[in-house]
Amino acid sequence: MTDAELRGFLMAGTRTGKFATTRPDGRPHVAPVWFVVDGDDLVFMTNSATVKGRSLRHDPRAALVVDLEAPPYAFVLVEGTVSISEDLDEMLDQSIAIARRYMGEENAQTYGRRNAVAGELLVRLRMDHVVAVDNMAGHD
Amino acid sequence: MTDAELRGFLMAGTRTGKFATTRPDGRPHVAPVWFVVDGDDLVFMTNSATVKGRSLRHDPRAALVVDLEAPPYAFVLVEGTVSISEDLDEMLDQSIAIARRYMGEENAQTYGRRNAVAGELLVRLRMDHVVAVDNMAGHD
Repeated sequence: MTDAELRGFLMAGTRTGKFATTRPDGRPHVAPVWFVVDGDDLVFMTNSATVKGRSLRHDPRAALVVDLEAPPYAFVLVEGTVSISEDLDEMLDQSIAIARRYMGEENAQTYGRRNAVAGELLVRLRMDHVVAVDNMAGHD
Repeated sequence: MTDAELRGFLMAGTRTGKFATTRPDGRPHVAPVWFVVDGDDLVFMTNSATVKGRSLRHDPRAALVVDLEAPPYAFVLVEGTVSISEDLDEMLDQSIAIARRYMGEENAQTYGRRNAVAGELLVRLRMDHVVAVDNMAGHD
């Protein structure tokens, strides 16, 4: 995929990211997240009390995959080390953008403002290491 | 969700599983997999040379999430320890069932037989520990 195709794939519709972390005891964890592409980062929010929030505090290495769940099937995997911000102003802008993507323009402000509060983490995963497979039918 | 709803959610259409493992160096990895529900197991195949194949040999603890990527958004997360089989007869039945789900009845035999070969692993993740959230809009 070209860079434009990659970004288009990641931002298509309401596709969610499946975000994987390693728990302190070594077990993997994965959960869907609402995210947007901001520059070269995938950006999403999570509460500091969630499994992913706690796991990231322990080990910031992470992976996020987005896929097309129909023929010809395809996916983009991003791996790297996250950075975390608790700055509420920075969080608010991203929170509104995320809400716009997943809940629509009409709900963007309401959802965005409700989620950008103390206790939430703004997580950035830089697109440094990317694997893109644009036709995986028949592969595994 | 009831047990029937859970199974229906997992088996709806061509939803893929996002399967997470921990690499030997502790980094998380996640990749989409084609799977079916067989009894109380989620069953899929992978090559022994893939990241997930190699990671599972090192640590069989895993997690798999399936989600609905549209309002009201929902997901099912299964966590546990996998078992692995390289028995080609057992593999063939599952391989055909998996191909039927994702490539259609007309391709089930061809894809199924092509994939059930030496070097492939049949992976079973028992549905012992399940988290089901059937409306996550507004949550994170």
